[in-house]
Amino acid sequence: MNSKGIVLSIGDAHVEDTLKAYRQKLEDAILPEYSIELPDTIESLKNKQFNSVKYLYEHKLLSETEFNITDTPASELVPKLAKGELTAVDVFKAFAKRATIAHQFTNCAMEIFNDEGLERAKYLDEYMAKEKKPIGPLHGLPISLKEHYNFKGKVTHSAYVSLIDNVTPEHGATTQVLENLGAVFYIRTNEPQTLMHLCSNNNYIGLTRNPYNLSLSSGGSSSGEGALVSFGGSPIGLGSDIGGSIRSPSAFSGCIGLRPTTQRVSLGGSTSALGGQESVPAVQGPMTRSIDDLEFWMEIYINQGKPWETDCNMVPLPWRKVDVPKVDSLTIAVMYDDGLVKPTPPIQRGLKVTADKLSKAGAKVVEFKPIKTKLAYDTVHKMYCCDGNDAQKTLLAESGEPLTKLTQWNLNYGDGGRPFSITENRQLNIIRDTLKQEYTDFLNENKIDFILSPTYNNVAPRPEEIYNWSYTSLFNILDLPTLVFQTGLFQDPKVDKWDDSHSTYEFRSDLEKLELDNYIPENFTGAPIGLQLSGRRYFDEEVVAAGKSIIELLKVDLHNIY
Amino acid sequence: MNSKGIVLSIGDAHVEDTLKAYRQKLEDAILPEYSIELPDTIESLKNKQFNSVKYLYEHKLLSETEFNITDTPASELVPKLAKGELTAVDVFKAFAKRATIAHQFTNCAMEIFNDEGLERAKYLDEYMAKEKKPIGPLHGLPISLKEHYNFKGKVTHSAYVSLIDNVTPEHGATTQVLENLGAVFYIRTNEPQTLMHLCSNNNYIGLTRNPYNLSLSSGGSSSGEGALVSFGGSPIGLGSDIGGSIRSPSAFSGCIGLRPTTQRVSLGGSTSALGGQESVPAVQGPMTRSIDDLEFWMEIYINQGKPWETDCNMVPLPWRKVDVPKVDSLTIAVMYDDGLVKPTPPIQRGLKVTADKLSKAGAKVVEFKPIKTKLAYDTVHKMYCCDGNDAQKTLLAESGEPLTKLTQWNLNYGDGGRPFSITENRQLNIIRDTLKQEYTDFLNENKIDFILSPTYNNVAPRPEEIYNWSYTSLFNILDLPTLVFQTGLFQDPKVDKWDDSHSTYEFRSDLEKLELDNYIPENFTGAPIGLQLSGRRYFDEEVVAAGKSIIELLKVDLHNIY
Repeated sequence: MNSKGIVLSIGDAHVEDTLKAYRQKLEDAILPEYSIELPDTIESLKNKQFNSVKYLYEHKLLSETEFNITDTPASELVPKLAKGELTAVDVFKAFAKRATIAHQFTNCAMEIFNDEGLERAKYLDEYMAKEKKPIGPLHGLPISLKEHYNFKGKVTHSAYVSLIDNVTPEHGATTQVLENLGAVFYIRTNEPQTLMHLCSNNNYIGLTRNPYNLSLSSGGSSSGEGALVSFGGSPIGLGSDIGGSIRSPSAFSGCIGLRPTTQRVSLGGSTSALGGQESVPAVQGPMTRSIDDLEFWMEIYINQGKPWETDCNMVPLPWRKVDVPKVDSLTIAVMYDDGLVKPTPPIQRGLKVTADKLSKAGAKVVEFKPIKTKLAYDTVHKMYCCDGNDAQKTLLAESGEPLTKLTQWNLNYGDGGRPFSITENRQLNIIRDTLKQEYTDFLNENKIDFILSPTYNNVAPRPEEIYNWSYTSLFNILDLPTLVFQTGLFQDPKVDKWDDSHSTYEFRSDLEKLELDNYIPENFTGAPIGLQLSGRRYFDEEVVAAGKSIIELLKVDLHNIY
Repeated sequence: MNSKGIVLSIGDAHVEDTLKAYRQKLEDAILPEYSIELPDTIESLKNKQFNSVKYLYEHKLLSETEFNITDTPASELVPKLAKGELTAVDVFKAFAKRATIAHQFTNCAMEIFNDEGLERAKYLDEYMAKEKKPIGPLHGLPISLKEHYNFKGKVTHSAYVSLIDNVTPEHGATTQVLENLGAVFYIRTNEPQTLMHLCSNNNYIGLTRNPYNLSLSSGGSSSGEGALVSFGGSPIGLGSDIGGSIRSPSAFSGCIGLRPTTQRVSLGGSTSALGGQESVPAVQGPMTRSIDDLEFWMEIYINQGKPWETDCNMVPLPWRKVDVPKVDSLTIAVMYDDGLVKPTPPIQRGLKVTADKLSKAGAKVVEFKPIKTKLAYDTVHKMYCCDGNDAQKTLLAESGEPLTKLTQWNLNYGDGGRPFSITENRQLNIIRDTLKQEYTDFLNENKIDFILSPTYNNVAPRPEEIYNWSYTSLFNILDLPTLVFQTGLFQDPKVDKWDDSHSTYEFRSDLEKLELDNYIPENFTGAPIGLQLSGRRYFDEEVVAAGKSIIELLKVDLHNIY
């Protein structure tokens, strides 16, 4: 039993020692100047369903200056940095402090390197002083990175113990682009074993907690980013998504996230077991507390970063300026239920409130009747493990590390981990393309602009109690750009109870029963209610612009909510 | 033995009868008003290495008006049609005649339907008279289509006898886009059994002959398009390319062709055995006699056809206007030899003449030293048959049709047709991406704008004597946009002899020996010498613009050459 409560007996002294040193380094990175005294033990705080975001503000854990900096959207920070109104060092220190506190509450960081961040910030200030201009369009902006992106000279393990010595010689493609644009790196964030959970458990540092309710999961697999960004410890975090891994932590932890269409944001130079798997592509994307920041990042990254120059798999599609549409010009199809797992009361409420407000503001709101969602679910889950999960199993077996609960679950996706033939895989690809075309035709024929849907059938689950990916993975197999936004609503045990009909509800599957039996209203107090908005493939700009309209309508300001 | 000299005994009376009727329909489509009396039997013409293009002009097989129309580039025809200076019917009839003659010489058509073409042209003329405007930006332009694109209400068999009853209910995506833009269809063209030959043999109508030397192959697999477009029987033909199938017939038959980057031109709604195979994607692309027409087609198809609206797999990347670069601004790397199969004397001459002219005009010309071309070759050939060619074999076995020589060859690509595991296929994908990145980095680091290379180690081969795909398939695995252009040079047996060193040349492989032993200068008289120009992924516009510079430098006018 190690200090994080993880049982691990691998029987390899080198690995055991290296793991111990890895964890110790993370503990040592909690520097006195950035850290706080926690109000109680983590165990007690969890028992209280503690809201750390509320505590942060109410107990003024930061100075006024630090709050000002860390609650300023990135799109406003960057011009101030460029004009010299703020120094990179001041901005860095404020975020380093807030990130460290976020980590103390949520265990969001896999690795903290504030020393290097500070050095980089100092260098940027010196550059400004000397050159009288910023080094690039993201000069001095702190950006957090999910651990599995390769980082020059650091170990990149993707939460596999077998990769504990895997020092990556170069930055991943997007990391390098961001460094060239002037970003400051200081933290790499937590992710689950295999990356294939919508939660966070692993044998390095264990689970990440939800900042709004420490007893709940922060989501996954961009688990640490969800908690960190939602807490305000990073203005922009980068996640990756093959089945919901940007969207689940964004929705659960309380921030905004975009799963872009493929080939716009490079995931080149990242470590995972899924290299060469192309039937359902993984994408990288931003997580923020402001929709403006999300757009700001996409525009600068794409138009000025030109990722296609260094990653041959990117498409040189510029980020277009798109007007924010008037709500009354929108036609939105609302998916109240995907036909597989019925949403719980808080999600039902979130959908209803949003749909009602849209309707009242003049939008055309129609009901989205599920189109072959079961086929989509079955197909995408088979695609994940066409290799019989051979690559994952190999990486796990190499160290002999214990399998977490959700790894045991995901290794049986598809046909229970049976390897598929190439012919079968090609048939799955054809099914996928037929589904994509059906959804495209549906949107076109019915003149629907966007689909509004749950991100998951529930709000943030309790740790390792999340089995259903149907609401998120649908948009991976369809490759539709999908935004997660916050409704500004939070779960309320008094309000969000099952209605009477639920007692006689006939579950449509074991999966549905497993998921819905887990919903006991009292366990989810204060969990954020986030939803998905999906648009047409490669029209990410329109999705973000419509997201602005909706967020404005809902009057949600994530820099001031808890 | 049927009328085309094909032995076929399938033992299924329905199939035999349907095949017979299919062939009879094609013969019946050679209408008296469009056809000519051939100067000799095909067998005699082949023995004479007959140049049918020369004969067309020298014996004035068309009227002056018909020559004027069919020798006017599409980009000039379309404005004349739009202004009413030419009628759609007149334009159609001229091309129908030239196409019919092309077919008589080369056997390029799989299906001719001049009656429907004429009806469509009449409809368009009536539309113009009534509406005082063209129906679309391609109003009245005849366009030829490779057979395997689905055509509404017609059989689409992709040269598999088992698909002889496969009536496709809808147009393929690109065909539909072009119809919407105002195109006139009248001919579907020949392709080889399985589509996986750089030649044309099949059990429907057999081989297509090269218009410049009837004893040679027109290339493949867009075999009919190569012969038809080069002969001038279609202003714009559409081919498809997974290993060289646009470029080989363009180079061999004497026209221009573009293998675009993937996801710009839709191959959606086509029939083949390769559905769901994505490791090496097939693309559709235009074949023309003028580089302006090629650009004209790409611009209108992409910017006005917006194929992404109907094919969800297309990228909405507009076709950009790009200035034609000055030759002295270009840096071009010339691949004189890919390290696998040495080019024959006419190809060596074509490369040298082009490189010399580029150098003299001020371009920076450097030698391209092959980068892992053997690995690329092995990898792409394995990718073609990762399924152990299961899909091809199934479609072949269903009818029991005899396998052509090159089908027997291609069914053994990779590891002799052994099925790969998903893990192996993923590893191949990783190798492919590493290769793509290496080439991208090479171009960037050496500031190279374009790669100039042979299309094949030889000019047009004799029928079914083409085994090596290395020069074309390299750019499929790299997914680089690649233009085939004509040097304006033709094989000359007196000039294009092996130099003395060849007698002691040590072949680097059996493949190289097989290929080079086939080069007997006297057999290739007058074969066009076409080369490839490749640029950066998704920068198709720059490749076409540079192609213009080079073609202008070489002073090649394919509307006036034989």
